[in-house]
Amino acid sequence: MNPPQNDTLLRALRREPTEYTPIWLMRQAGRYLPEYNATRARAGSFMALCTDPDLAAEVTLQPLARFALDAAILFSDILTVPDAMGLGLHFVEGEGPRFSRPLVDEQAVASLAVPDPERLRYVYDAVAAIKRELAGKVPLIGFAGSPFTLACYMIEGGGSTDFARVRRMLYARPDLLHRILSVNAEAVAAYLAQQVAHGADVLMVFDTWGGLLTSDSYGHFSLAYIRTVLDRVRRASGVATPTIVFTKGGGQWLERIADTGCSAVGVDWMTDIGAARTRVGTRVALQGNLDPLALLATPDVVRTQASAILDAAGTSPGFIFNLGHGIVPSTPPDNVAALVEFVHQDSRSRRRPAAVGQSAASRAGTGSSGH
Amino acid sequence: MNPPQNDTLLRALRREPTEYTPIWLMRQAGRYLPEYNATRARAGSFMALCTDPDLAAEVTLQPLARFALDAAILFSDILTVPDAMGLGLHFVEGEGPRFSRPLVDEQAVASLAVPDPERLRYVYDAVAAIKRELAGKVPLIGFAGSPFTLACYMIEGGGSTDFARVRRMLYARPDLLHRILSVNAEAVAAYLAQQVAHGADVLMVFDTWGGLLTSDSYGHFSLAYIRTVLDRVRRASGVATPTIVFTKGGGQWLERIADTGCSAVGVDWMTDIGAARTRVGTRVALQGNLDPLALLATPDVVRTQASAILDAAGTSPGFIFNLGHGIVPSTPPDNVAALVEFVHQDSRSRRRPAAVGQSAASRAGTGSSGH
Repeated sequence: MNPPQNDTLLRALRREPTEYTPIWLMRQAGRYLPEYNATRARAGSFMALCTDPDLAAEVTLQPLARFALDAAILFSDILTVPDAMGLGLHFVEGEGPRFSRPLVDEQAVASLAVPDPERLRYVYDAVAAIKRELAGKVPLIGFAGSPFTLACYMIEGGGSTDFARVRRMLYARPDLLHRILSVNAEAVAAYLAQQVAHGADVLMVFDTWGGLLTSDSYGHFSLAYIRTVLDRVRRASGVATPTIVFTKGGGQWLERIADTGCSAVGVDWMTDIGAARTRVGTRVALQGNLDPLALLATPDVVRTQASAILDAAGTSPGFIFNLGHGIVPSTPPDNVAALVEFVHQDSRSRRRPAAVGQSAASRAGTGSSGH
Repeated sequence: MNPPQNDTLLRALRREPTEYTPIWLMRQAGRYLPEYNATRARAGSFMALCTDPDLAAEVTLQPLARFALDAAILFSDILTVPDAMGLGLHFVEGEGPRFSRPLVDEQAVASLAVPDPERLRYVYDAVAAIKRELAGKVPLIGFAGSPFTLACYMIEGGGSTDFARVRRMLYARPDLLHRILSVNAEAVAAYLAQQVAHGADVLMVFDTWGGLLTSDSYGHFSLAYIRTVLDRVRRASGVATPTIVFTKGGGQWLERIADTGCSAVGVDWMTDIGAARTRVGTRVALQGNLDPLALLATPDVVRTQASAILDAAGTSPGFIFNLGHGIVPSTPPDNVAALVEFVHQDSRSRRRPAAVGQSAASRAGTGSSGH
C-alpha cells in the first residue's frame, strides 16, 4: 500500500516530526453539516445511511470537501457489531439507540456468539467505497466500540446515564459479564481486521463508558479486553496498523492505556493535555482534546482555546489535534473551519525554522543588551 | 457545644486516631427505605417533605434507627438555594428537578440576587429539629451544592447528561457565568453559615458536575467559588466547622481540592483511594468510595468490595467510609446493614493492639528462625 498523499496523521501516530499538527474531529461527518442532513433525509433513517455503502461513503467525504482535515473516519455506528449478533439495533427519534433483544438473562448471554462476517459486509463495502473515493488523499480511520462499551448497551438495551445494569452485573455476576466481553473482543477484533483488509489505514477503539468503572474494574473489564482486541488485530492483519485507544473519563488511567501497545491515546477535554504528556512520556502519541462545546462560541474563542491546547501539548512529536468528544449537532460549521485553519497555521508557525531563528536572535539580543 | 456521644466522624475529620473507621452514606435517607417511602407518601411530594421541618427530621433519622451510622445528614435538596432565589423548583415524576424560571437570558442573570434568608427558614428549622431529636448521639452534616453545580441546573433549567448550556455560556459569555457564580457563592456561604448556627456539626459541598469541566475551567469556574464559600463560612460562623468537598469526576484534581483548606476530600468510585492517599498525603481526610452499584449484589460481595477499600485506604488516620456517589433506590437495606457492620468490625480488627502484637511476634519468630 502506498502512503496517502497527506500522511501527516500517520507520521504523527509514529511520533515522527510533521510540518504541522494534523487534525480530524470525532463525529466530523454529522448533523452539524446541512449536506449530511440532506443525505440522511434521502436515506430515510440513520441505519439506512449506515447500511448503504455509497451513502456512507458520501457522508464520510462531506467534511473533507469543506475543511482541510488530515483524515477521514468511516461513517458508521459502534453498535453495528451487536446488531450483527442479532440484538436488533434501531434508533428512537430523540432518544438514541435501542436493542429489541438486549441481554436480559443468562440464556441470552449463553447464546451470544461472534456474528457471521456476512452480516457486517455493508461496513466493509463502505470502507472499500470510501477508500476508492478518497483516491489516496488522506488516511482512512476505521473504528469499533470497546468490548466493555458495547456490553453497556447490550445489557442496558440502550443508552443510560449510569449504566446501572452492567455495573450491577459486574458485581453480582462477573462470570456473565466476562463471557459477553470475551465474545465482544473476538467479534471486534475480527471486525477491525476486516476493516484493515478493506483499506482502513488507522484503527480507533472507542471506550465511551470505561470511565464509569472503578480503577480496578477498568483494568479487568475494559482495558484487558481492549488489549485482547489490539493483540488479535495485530496477528490477524499481519501489518502494523496504527491504533488509537480512547476511554472517555479515563484521564486517571492514561499510563495504563499507553501500556496496551496502542500508537496513540485519545484524551477527553477534562484532562490537561500537558499533564497527560508528562505522565505518558514520549512512548505514545496523544490525541485531543478541545471541549466540543467551545465550538459553540465565536471563532475568536475557538482560536484562543485551540492555542491553549497547542501550548499545553508542547513540541514533542506525536500530537494529533481533535476534540475531547464528538462534535455536537448545534456546532456552526464556520467555527469548525476556523479551528482547522488555525490549528494548521499556528502549529506550522510554531515549527517554522525562521521563527526559531528569530527567537534565538532576539534572545541573543536581549542577552547582549545586558552587557 | 458539647461533642456528640459518638464523635468518631469528627475525630476522623481532624485526622486523629479512631477505634474504627466511621461510615455514613450519601443519600442514606432515601427511596431504598420503605419507611422513607411511607413518609414521603404521607407528605404528598418530595418538596413537601423538604419544606416540613418535622418530616425532614423524621426521614433524616430513619437510617440511623436501622444502621449504626456514624453521622446524620440533613434531608434536603441542593436546589433549595436557587428555588429561594425565585427560580421555581419543582419535581417532574421520573424526570427529576426542573426550574420554572431558568436563567435563559442576560436580564435573568442581571436580576439574580442572594435570597432573603426567610425563604430558607424551613431548612434551618429542619436542622434545629434534627439536632434536637438526635440528642447528641452522632454529628449532623449540613450541606449545599457548589456554586457551579447550582449554576448547571439554574442555566439548564433541570438535569442534563452534558449540561451543554452552561458549558456553552462558559466559552461564549464567561462574564455572565461569573456573575451567577458570585451570587451563588455568597448565597451558599450564608446558607451554610446558618446551618452551622442552627446546629450542623460538619458541612459538605456537593460539586456534582465540576467533573464536566476542563482542568483549567474547573479551577476558574468551580474550585475558586468553593474556596470563596469555605472562606466566608469560616469568617461568618467564627468557629472551625469541619468541611468536606466532593467533586464527582474530580479524581484528577484531588490535590487542588485538598488545597482549598477543606477538612476532607470526597472521592468518587472511579478513583483508587490508595492512589488518592498517596497523592494528597496526610494533609486532609479522605471520604469514599464504594461504587453504589456494588450494594445491589450479595452481602458477601459487599464485604469483599468494602474490604478492598479498607485495604487501599491504609492505616493513616483520617479516613471516612462512604459510597462514591448516592445510594440507588433499588438497594436492598440488608446490604446496607451488612456494609455498616462489616466496616465497623473489620476496621476495628485492623486496629486491635493484640493483632499488632501477634503480627510483631510472628515477625520476630520468622526473624529468629533465620539464625
